[in-house]
Amino acid sequence: MGREIERKFLVQGEDWKQGAAVTPMRQGYLSTDPERVVRVRIEGDRAVLTIKGKSVGAVRGEWEYDIPKADAEELLALCPRPLIEKSRYRIAHAGMLWEVDEFFGDNAGLVVAEIELQSEDQAFDKPHWVGAEVTQDARYYNSNLLRHPYKDW
Amino acid sequence: MGREIERKFLVQGEDWKQGAAVTPMRQGYLSTDPERVVRVRIEGDRAVLTIKGKSVGAVRGEWEYDIPKADAEELLALCPRPLIEKSRYRIAHAGMLWEVDEFFGDNAGLVVAEIELQSEDQAFDKPHWVGAEVTQDARYYNSNLLRHPYKDW
Repeated sequence: MGREIERKFLVQGEDWKQGAAVTPMRQGYLSTDPERVVRVRIEGDRAVLTIKGKSVGAVRGEWEYDIPKADAEELLALCPRPLIEKSRYRIAHAGMLWEVDEFFGDNAGLVVAEIELQSEDQAFDKPHWVGAEVTQDARYYNSNLLRHPYKDW
Repeated sequence: MGREIERKFLVQGEDWKQGAAVTPMRQGYLSTDPERVVRVRIEGDRAVLTIKGKSVGAVRGEWEYDIPKADAEELLALCPRPLIEKSRYRIAHAGMLWEVDEFFGDNAGLVVAEIELQSEDQAFDKPHWVGAEVTQDARYYNSNLLRHPYKDW
């Protein structure tokens, strides 16, 4: 497997951006059923097929497979439009890795930070640019941003 | 990719069974959307994640990835019930490979033969136990046999 423990937060300001490593991402969904999401993602030169189970709190089953980038392009062509396009910034802070996603297209203006944990109650230090937690808010699932993009909120 | 050209036929009698190599198969679906089917299958010791695009005649896009069997067991647990259970028999005839699927559970009594071709108009010899063609009949898609099993036809 495959168990992802992740917390998600809104982001304030632009301070986080400076010097962060950035990867362009394009992703689509073969299934957006929350009990069995199937995602195709191209991130830089890598392509990944990911299956996610049902979320229970911050915990979610996750299975990830590297696939050829050419396959991923073909699989993205099968996915309903629009695709999700975003830039992912990776930022080290107090020994932890933060991933900040800046969305484009219909989700432009949305910026979300995620941190992956080893356990649900793991303590961590929040950078000053991290705002309100939205882990439990299903609107922020990327698979939901397709049907209800940020511009319509 | 990924392009599968396959024709499907009903099977008559039991003559085909003798001496055929048999593999037990158990499969479920993360998506049964006909434009983007996602199938998890355990066949003997092998486990495969398969994506199928929309069928156009006998042609269908297909992408297949071997995955660990332990992952497949977990992914099958995400799939809606019931799973499809069948025995696949592989039978050589006139230089071609026929695959005969004998279904169990709610699809018991259904036996279907498939042949994979290199082109749509490729000629092949039919064994005497091969009956009516059902390539175009969507009822026979395994992904449809879940919701409309053979016992309800």
